[in-house]
Amino acid sequence: MGNELAAYADLRARLRRAHVLGSVAGLLGWDEQVNLPPGAAAQRGEQMALMAGLEHAEASAPALGAAIAACEAAPGDALDKDARVVVAAARRDYDRATKLPAELVSEKARLSSEAYHAWAAARAARDFPAFAPFLEKHLEIARREAELLGYGERPYDLAIDRHDPGLDAARIDALFAELRAGLVPLARRIDARAEEARARGEGPLALKGFDVGAQRELVRRVTARLGFDYERGRLDVSLHPFCGGAGDDLRLTTRFDADNPLDALYSSIHEAGHGMYEQGLAREHAGTALAQAAGMAAHESQSRLWENQVARSRAFWRWLEPELRAAFPGPLAGVSGEQLHAAANAVEPGGMIRVDADEVHYNLHILLRFDLEKRLFAGTLRVAELPEAWDALCEELLGRRPAHVGEGVLQDVHWSGGAFGYFPSYTLGNMMAAQLWATARAKLPGIEDDFARGEFDRLLGWLRAEVHARGRREDAFALTRRVTGGELGAGALLGYLEERYG
Amino acid sequence: MGNELAAYADLRARLRRAHVLGSVAGLLGWDEQVNLPPGAAAQRGEQMALMAGLEHAEASAPALGAAIAACEAAPGDALDKDARVVVAAARRDYDRATKLPAELVSEKARLSSEAYHAWAAARAARDFPAFAPFLEKHLEIARREAELLGYGERPYDLAIDRHDPGLDAARIDALFAELRAGLVPLARRIDARAEEARARGEGPLALKGFDVGAQRELVRRVTARLGFDYERGRLDVSLHPFCGGAGDDLRLTTRFDADNPLDALYSSIHEAGHGMYEQGLAREHAGTALAQAAGMAAHESQSRLWENQVARSRAFWRWLEPELRAAFPGPLAGVSGEQLHAAANAVEPGGMIRVDADEVHYNLHILLRFDLEKRLFAGTLRVAELPEAWDALCEELLGRRPAHVGEGVLQDVHWSGGAFGYFPSYTLGNMMAAQLWATARAKLPGIEDDFARGEFDRLLGWLRAEVHARGRREDAFALTRRVTGGELGAGALLGYLEERYG
Repeated sequence: MGNELAAYADLRARLRRAHVLGSVAGLLGWDEQVNLPPGAAAQRGEQMALMAGLEHAEASAPALGAAIAACEAAPGDALDKDARVVVAAARRDYDRATKLPAELVSEKARLSSEAYHAWAAARAARDFPAFAPFLEKHLEIARREAELLGYGERPYDLAIDRHDPGLDAARIDALFAELRAGLVPLARRIDARAEEARARGEGPLALKGFDVGAQRELVRRVTARLGFDYERGRLDVSLHPFCGGAGDDLRLTTRFDADNPLDALYSSIHEAGHGMYEQGLAREHAGTALAQAAGMAAHESQSRLWENQVARSRAFWRWLEPELRAAFPGPLAGVSGEQLHAAANAVEPGGMIRVDADEVHYNLHILLRFDLEKRLFAGTLRVAELPEAWDALCEELLGRRPAHVGEGVLQDVHWSGGAFGYFPSYTLGNMMAAQLWATARAKLPGIEDDFARGEFDRLLGWLRAEVHARGRREDAFALTRRVTGGELGAGALLGYLEERYG
Repeated sequence: MGNELAAYADLRARLRRAHVLGSVAGLLGWDEQVNLPPGAAAQRGEQMALMAGLEHAEASAPALGAAIAACEAAPGDALDKDARVVVAAARRDYDRATKLPAELVSEKARLSSEAYHAWAAARAARDFPAFAPFLEKHLEIARREAELLGYGERPYDLAIDRHDPGLDAARIDALFAELRAGLVPLARRIDARAEEARARGEGPLALKGFDVGAQRELVRRVTARLGFDYERGRLDVSLHPFCGGAGDDLRLTTRFDADNPLDALYSSIHEAGHGMYEQGLAREHAGTALAQAAGMAAHESQSRLWENQVARSRAFWRWLEPELRAAFPGPLAGVSGEQLHAAANAVEPGGMIRVDADEVHYNLHILLRFDLEKRLFAGTLRVAELPEAWDALCEELLGRRPAHVGEGVLQDVHWSGGAFGYFPSYTLGNMMAAQLWATARAKLPGIEDDFARGEFDRLLGWLRAEVHARGRREDAFALTRRVTGGELGAGALLGYLEERYG
């Protein structure tokens, strides 16, 4: 069982080359959001279109197809189980790539670059019509892609499947119905309690004047302590936090607000969760399915587990509080530890911004987006109607309407890149995170005492072995089943939220 | 005369595509020096090798050769004069590219990436033997390239010609002999005067505590005022200042020292001079010779003209001084304007660092490097002997030996990238700058009064028309002749240095 087949070596070399090319394109994307001068948008669009064309050429090269076919035709014992995973994933990706013409791929890359800048400007100007044509165009491209890939009748399923292989709108509908049934009553109880507190005159903790340089230092120290390796990564600033880069060069971004130090801290812990997953992939297999994340839900499970289950816990705060006080002695004078921990776990009924939402309401934001995307793709909702549909559903799920499109339909970056079908992964990731956390607690006795001492190696080591190092050998369902012994569902998340916020 | 030949349109499209690909590779290079995490060097090397291979494939594509040949075979009136410049330059570049195998190009790119990191570490550790194998390997590659390109007997001439088409070691020897004859006596007079001042107890101006954030703001404001367009550019920090990027995305770097605000200021003005040249190239012709710099000497003439002839002048300082005092009221209290201007024009006999050298001694540093490169390529000097040869020649030209290799043979980044034959361009650029400046003064009456008011549009406009917009239509000699009416020589530089420092 040596995997010594020449075609398999050729396949791996080709996949690695495509991966390196993709990592260059990825750096252009990171740089666009972190560094790009305002006048360089068109030039960057031209660069990204060229790179997308080259990536597509690699991903659809006949020689790659021949290598895959030769591996598939090899005798049963020529390749071991891992190699067969690599070949099967390569086949799936190759078939997808060869059915999309290079021009369409370039067109989408160019549109994404232009639409990103249009979105940023439209959001600032609160001007949805300025962005609408880009969204129309992205939807049209998504429909053309679906036609070409055999999803003509269900283009939204293709969008979902791309981020989470094996999932579709119907399965998500069922999972989300289960979640909604438990979550809406829970949210209403929490909202009512928050309203009562407000009526008693209790307001949110007012924090002011947290030096941005000191915030940056703290964020770096905390994420490094959790396990993000800065020898192989960076932290920068962008409008919308994200985790970019690849392999030995993972790049987290955040944004700083002098009056809200917890925002940068928690968004950075979230992105570091993504980064640690990537850093835990097997670098010797770079480019193959053995070194790719299982899917976006699994990715999100890692960012959420670190952000929520770990970093909002009382145990974690026993370690964090002295760190915070050392970094900000002035601004924290007179603020109690209890107040700080409460602020990190505050629920805000009626908050309009998804990325600022608490753990409970966050999932309601996702139910909203999933529903709207579903209707946009079904053709029962037009782009021009989107702002009103957003506002109406927002009122229904979250209790009030946004004041303007900047805190409504234009708040998220995703659609500017044509990333439809991505939002559901966030809540699916929350479900997985809760299930993984329940298992970790059972299998790693005293794990919360580790957090209180600022020790995270045991948890990271367990995630490395059970999730990261497994790559794309399993989809989100199979992964959850293997690690937790149960099927993916809403139960663990509802139980966790009830325990922490109920 | 329509240039409507299909082959010419094809040629331009191919050149533009190669240019865009090159700009992506350029961004990787910029990012490597500005952002790269320490653990990502090997990965970046793999990315750059892949991009270099792709660039080489574009530059040597048979279809490109066919387009060039078809243009050359077209009737005499099918292409205008500019189009013929494009075709001739494309021919020269294509012939060079097709004679170098892709593996050699990739090997050099990979070596350059590794050697850069080895150089930075060796310089910090003052350990020449740690860097020597990389230099050996670069010299070996340069000799192989010379063999392949028909320069087998004179590999150093190829290295020079690559940066400045038309030049060779013999012509530079002649120009440098002319310069040396005047410069060495001038430097000795200046050194003696400086020694006398030192004996009288006059020391250099001690500056302390210039906030780095305020320095960054000032540097941005000054370079923007000169004419560098930050809508199409950036300013960042790197170990060695440089100007990277392309077109609408020009990226200057500098480094800040709280006790030496003039270092960041002048290095940034220098790099902005390069950047303004690039920003003045005709963007509609991107990728063709019409939108490429004439050569490295011409490039350096622009950076030096802004840095020295403009920004060290008394007139410029009449505008700059209030800006400086507004930025640094504390650290400049008690420092007179005369002292500040003198500090910007200070000469330091025996200074060991090229990039810190004053205008007079700078050229002695270049004479040193030119001589050593010439001997390395001739085989009369071995890499192992280089530190001792450096130190000996340094004593001869500059009056003392470096204290260690960090301020000696390891001080420059160039050799880590295999950029031999580049150093002479600096002094050739100084010669051109002095000649251009003498002409500008004659043709733009009252130009120095502009500077005193912080106005630089007239000078920039003249340089745009006379130099930048001309692209690569002429080499350094022809350009100098057309603009100044005289041959490139040492006279104007010696006259300028005598006037300012004699």
